[in-house]
Amino acid sequence: MNVDGKAYRSIRLVDDNRSVEIIDQTALPHLFRTIALSTMADAANAIAGMQVRGAPLIGATAACGLALAMNHDPSDANLDHTLRTLAATRPTAVNLMWALKRVGEVLLPLPPRDRGEVAWELAGEICDEDVALNRALGERGLPLIEAIWDVKGRADRVDVLTHCNAGWLATVDWGTALAPIYLAHERGIPVHVWVDETRPRNQGASLTAWELTRHGIPCTLIVDNAGGHLMRQGRVDICFVGTDRTTARGDVCNKIGTYLKALAARDNNLPFHVCAPSPSIDWSVEDGLAEIPIEDRGAEEVTTMSGLAPEGEVVNVDIAPAGVMVSNPGFDVTPARLITGLITERGVCPATRAGLAGLFPEFASDPKR
Amino acid sequence: MNVDGKAYRSIRLVDDNRSVEIIDQTALPHLFRTIALSTMADAANAIAGMQVRGAPLIGATAACGLALAMNHDPSDANLDHTLRTLAATRPTAVNLMWALKRVGEVLLPLPPRDRGEVAWELAGEICDEDVALNRALGERGLPLIEAIWDVKGRADRVDVLTHCNAGWLATVDWGTALAPIYLAHERGIPVHVWVDETRPRNQGASLTAWELTRHGIPCTLIVDNAGGHLMRQGRVDICFVGTDRTTARGDVCNKIGTYLKALAARDNNLPFHVCAPSPSIDWSVEDGLAEIPIEDRGAEEVTTMSGLAPEGEVVNVDIAPAGVMVSNPGFDVTPARLITGLITERGVCPATRAGLAGLFPEFASDPKR
Repeated sequence: MNVDGKAYRSIRLVDDNRSVEIIDQTALPHLFRTIALSTMADAANAIAGMQVRGAPLIGATAACGLALAMNHDPSDANLDHTLRTLAATRPTAVNLMWALKRVGEVLLPLPPRDRGEVAWELAGEICDEDVALNRALGERGLPLIEAIWDVKGRADRVDVLTHCNAGWLATVDWGTALAPIYLAHERGIPVHVWVDETRPRNQGASLTAWELTRHGIPCTLIVDNAGGHLMRQGRVDICFVGTDRTTARGDVCNKIGTYLKALAARDNNLPFHVCAPSPSIDWSVEDGLAEIPIEDRGAEEVTTMSGLAPEGEVVNVDIAPAGVMVSNPGFDVTPARLITGLITERGVCPATRAGLAGLFPEFASDPKR
Repeated sequence: MNVDGKAYRSIRLVDDNRSVEIIDQTALPHLFRTIALSTMADAANAIAGMQVRGAPLIGATAACGLALAMNHDPSDANLDHTLRTLAATRPTAVNLMWALKRVGEVLLPLPPRDRGEVAWELAGEICDEDVALNRALGERGLPLIEAIWDVKGRADRVDVLTHCNAGWLATVDWGTALAPIYLAHERGIPVHVWVDETRPRNQGASLTAWELTRHGIPCTLIVDNAGGHLMRQGRVDICFVGTDRTTARGDVCNKIGTYLKALAARDNNLPFHVCAPSPSIDWSVEDGLAEIPIEDRGAEEVTTMSGLAPEGEVVNVDIAPAGVMVSNPGFDVTPARLITGLITERGVCPATRAGLAGLFPEFASDPKR
């Protein structure tokens, strides 16, 4: 997508095959800066320090880190060391492990002299595949926006509400929940996005509002408390959110607060869609609430806030009474019954076991696959 | 209620009849300090600058400001000037106008030499009446907590969720939504409160978490996104919230986000009660959503955050992209169908016209009263 008219990806292999360019997401929304990663250590630090975040982008960055390592020293010892080091940067990130396994398995049997070039090619492939996957999600979701625009006589804008950041910054490009929106904009449909700020980490305010604005899509920032009221007022047409983990029966584990917006959509007879690329589907889990452990992320995210001080530097300020007890669940589970449809790269289906199995018969019949 | 073992009210007439002590709520939760108001201008500034907030406390402070003015200069001219000045501090505050009208109407026919003493007595009366009203709410709501405790075999704590600040800091003492909780605590029932931080102004984090902790009631601060998840996990027993305006059929206009918690309570079969003292009931309004205008409070509350910087001073930091569009509705309307009961000073009733009319027949039959 674009930043002020210039096309970017959240990660880019630089043509000389010796470095990778990322956007430093920790500096957003106050400062837009790209960083060159030249070594595996640079890539590991970018992941661990959350300069890159979002499952697909973390996987892509890990693959690039492996390629940088192989350019430098393609020995068995360094391959082993690199795989271990990168795997330790965000131990619970599924895409990270997947990307390392995929590239590692190809590199291991190769003679060291070939590893650099192959690793570089594979890293590029992983990035391009993510872009294609997300674009496919966009194509599948676009008709939902088009249909609303048609109902509105192709006159008024279509108002979409989203939660957290499931945009191009969380992937290599396009995003998941925002992909249909970017595509609608490209096709000339006037879309406007209500952006939940998404406490406690404020990814909506810091990232979603930033990327939409910079690409030229009108959006309005709201507090997480406001979405229900806007729906009651008839100012929302449809909701699109992402998913961290989708169960075989269609429950969706996503950023904390997603469930409340799904409830409000249901209470107002509004469509609530989850953009769920197939890698997000965990075929081994049925009941999201009972089976998915929700991490408690600690007090600091709630009791402090990072922002730009009047002197122009970014500082952390305390916003709660000293020593207050805090509970900070990072995710919630939206039950399938509240979800109008799952948007996958193969099409839109009901959030049911039968719906998902119809699109992905090969996985549904073999959960271990 | 207590602050670290010492009893306080949010406003107190000092015995020498020449000053009024308030708590500077703009300094909370980082600094607890009381301020003496010695002149009408002090009182006007305290209201306008939000050192006191909450409808009942604003009304009480206005009455005290009038008394301070009459002590100084009880002339007709000054009475008129004072009424105008205080009314302009927060023009939309209903209790402010009510308190000024009530005291003003008594003072006007009096000879100036009597006005100081009478104004002082009336100010004290208004404060004491608010305390009695809120204590009555507490007595009416207490059985709801007791019943849950009984069901739990009088063993486990009772978990209450609340939104915003409807505690003693918003009133003269006891609060509205927190009154049953303070009373339960006083009676030895173990209560624990989940406190929504309540973006954008964070009254939950700044005020509710502070006052509960200082009084010795266990509470846990959560982001506004988290309450639904806690309900699904079975970690909430009951919800108590306040109300800014209650309609004749039981719709409740309260701090933005209240509606989302009412939806979550309904989805989890949990009781959702609104503490609605009779002054909050607007008998002239039926349909809260259609008839109550919701103010948009401007962008700054959403795009900036006040907090304690590492150097120990309170600063405002920017937390959103520069120039982003913002919508900031201050309140939402929770429809009566989602409310389990209204707790009034005369008892608990269903959130229906018949329920309210049963408790307040004199108002229900004459909305203009």
